[in-house]
Amino acid sequence: MHHPENDEQYKGLTVNKGVENLPTVNPYTRFSRKKRVLTPEDYFRGIRDGNISILGQAVTLVESSLPEDQLIAQRVIEMCLPYSGNSIRIGITGVPGAGKSTFIEAMGTDLANRGKHLAVLAIDPSSERSKGSILGDKTRMQELSTAKNAFIRPSPSAGSLGGVARKTRETIVLCEAAGFDTVFVETVGVGQSETAAHSMVDFFLLLQVTGTGDELQGIKRGIMEMADGIAINKCDGNNIEKAQVAKTQFKNALALFPPTESGWKPYAVTCSAVEKTGLRDVWKMIEDYISHIRLNGYFDYQRTQQAKYWMYETINEQLLNSFYQNEHLKQLLSEAEQKVLNNELSSFIAAHNLLNEYFKKD
Amino acid sequence: MHHPENDEQYKGLTVNKGVENLPTVNPYTRFSRKKRVLTPEDYFRGIRDGNISILGQAVTLVESSLPEDQLIAQRVIEMCLPYSGNSIRIGITGVPGAGKSTFIEAMGTDLANRGKHLAVLAIDPSSERSKGSILGDKTRMQELSTAKNAFIRPSPSAGSLGGVARKTRETIVLCEAAGFDTVFVETVGVGQSETAAHSMVDFFLLLQVTGTGDELQGIKRGIMEMADGIAINKCDGNNIEKAQVAKTQFKNALALFPPTESGWKPYAVTCSAVEKTGLRDVWKMIEDYISHIRLNGYFDYQRTQQAKYWMYETINEQLLNSFYQNEHLKQLLSEAEQKVLNNELSSFIAAHNLLNEYFKKD
Repeated sequence: MHHPENDEQYKGLTVNKGVENLPTVNPYTRFSRKKRVLTPEDYFRGIRDGNISILGQAVTLVESSLPEDQLIAQRVIEMCLPYSGNSIRIGITGVPGAGKSTFIEAMGTDLANRGKHLAVLAIDPSSERSKGSILGDKTRMQELSTAKNAFIRPSPSAGSLGGVARKTRETIVLCEAAGFDTVFVETVGVGQSETAAHSMVDFFLLLQVTGTGDELQGIKRGIMEMADGIAINKCDGNNIEKAQVAKTQFKNALALFPPTESGWKPYAVTCSAVEKTGLRDVWKMIEDYISHIRLNGYFDYQRTQQAKYWMYETINEQLLNSFYQNEHLKQLLSEAEQKVLNNELSSFIAAHNLLNEYFKKD
Repeated sequence: MHHPENDEQYKGLTVNKGVENLPTVNPYTRFSRKKRVLTPEDYFRGIRDGNISILGQAVTLVESSLPEDQLIAQRVIEMCLPYSGNSIRIGITGVPGAGKSTFIEAMGTDLANRGKHLAVLAIDPSSERSKGSILGDKTRMQELSTAKNAFIRPSPSAGSLGGVARKTRETIVLCEAAGFDTVFVETVGVGQSETAAHSMVDFFLLLQVTGTGDELQGIKRGIMEMADGIAINKCDGNNIEKAQVAKTQFKNALALFPPTESGWKPYAVTCSAVEKTGLRDVWKMIEDYISHIRLNGYFDYQRTQQAKYWMYETINEQLLNSFYQNEHLKQLLSEAEQKVLNNELSSFIAAHNLLNEYFKKD
């Protein structure tokens, strides 16, 4: 059982020395800062009560790079952890122009109307709030953003993929503790974000449009084989026949792929987010998949594998950062790289020299 | 320009303190050891003279885990580097049972007979010499192993993937300096080895057999999208029609994939390694590809990207090893992992605690 009151696990946190002085239930700390008047317990209770405004503020803390915000955020997350996990997490990716926003809007509104509590998040390391990141422009999801049961949150603003992914994953925990039973994680089709999203969702949906070649330019190779299912969007108007052909093509292609670890056989369906047709087919595919993996145990297996994955991923990222963010090494690295590119130095000798410098300094 | 006589670059090597005392041209050192009587210069000259026996001994040094062997090996590699790069490097993977050995034997013998100088290497981190690793049993390649122009070398024996891959990549350098113009790198279809091989070859060939489902069980998802071409083997006897159908299916599937970075459109051909048919079609595909990427500059681009990749990969592997091979941390890691799996601790807090411990100790 989890004991939020047990501080033992926080002692290792390096972000701030003042762990013991952390505002907890001391009422005075409520007024010691400009904006934040809530304790971690307040956030936790607000989230558990399904208070969307407090959930939003907690997510802002999760996204903050201020050490004092992070400390509170981590406490809130720890408190929420035992109440998390009770949602279906769906990753959604697709080429620019596949109609992701419209799809999420249409699909999400339908789900919300049918009583689902939907949180829509995003992973987009390139995003900046001001530059219209994915989901950044809520006006693109006007209907969904006003739905009672929906919580839409743009990608955390620009940062390392690891950082952005961590924040999204932590936000899932908070949303689940707040009672959301369905979580969408949107990504941008560039490869790395997909891997990150794939590693935090139960079902990974690839949104396609008809045609080959240019239309697929934006998506990275390898993503198709990650997908648990494909939805061919824009199956409307003059496009219906083409979309049907594409569905068959993808069906045949998917059959040539090696079996998935889950034992599930991915397939393709058509839909039109604009005309709101076929969305239930997409949802049925997702539900069938979830039933399938709940039955054979893969659901829980994948969740625990993902939790492990993120622990190791976080460790790995920090270990690498401690090297690559070292100013002295940056200089040496760029020199070594040039020599390697000129065939003057083997990749391995170059690496060894740099590592020697790193471990010497430490 | 490369200056092998300049020792500056070796100073960083941590494997052995006695860099300055390294046997170079001192004739006395030739008799100071049991078996090794060659200096790095001797190895280098032997390799450049195309002496296969000396090449084999140099590869043994590359594969050795003894620091003194590694020092000599690294010197030999450095000397060979300026003379490397002049081969076509081809990665070959496929499910167990796809007939990789027979294919390499047939294809390789044909190439050798046509005057190519062929080196056949392998990446198989699970291999142990005694247990019949891939390529380990030269009797499986009897014809090729007796060909004048061929050099067959099994995978370095069991070790980390990074270690095995490094050795294979360094062996490519030696083989090229010895005049081999064609290099095959065989892998086992398990995923990680494929990524490693893919990152050191110009063309990545997936060997398939007809059928879906069970026949594909052995190969990992994602590998199909890595392939620059597919050869459907065992197109013989009663299997010809099925293989032709498979060729069309793969053709259609490949057309649905996003474009490759090289601008090349991968396709599928059929062949029979046993009946030695279609092998020239496979080779033509490879040659067409090489012409294509030489023309558009991708050949050189990919080679330099790969050199960079291996520098970073080596750095990353060592940084992670310094954490994961720490006995104290191993214990803490396993405890933390259990808490994460029990949902008692978030992946990120667990990671932070461990990292704190690691950086504290250093």
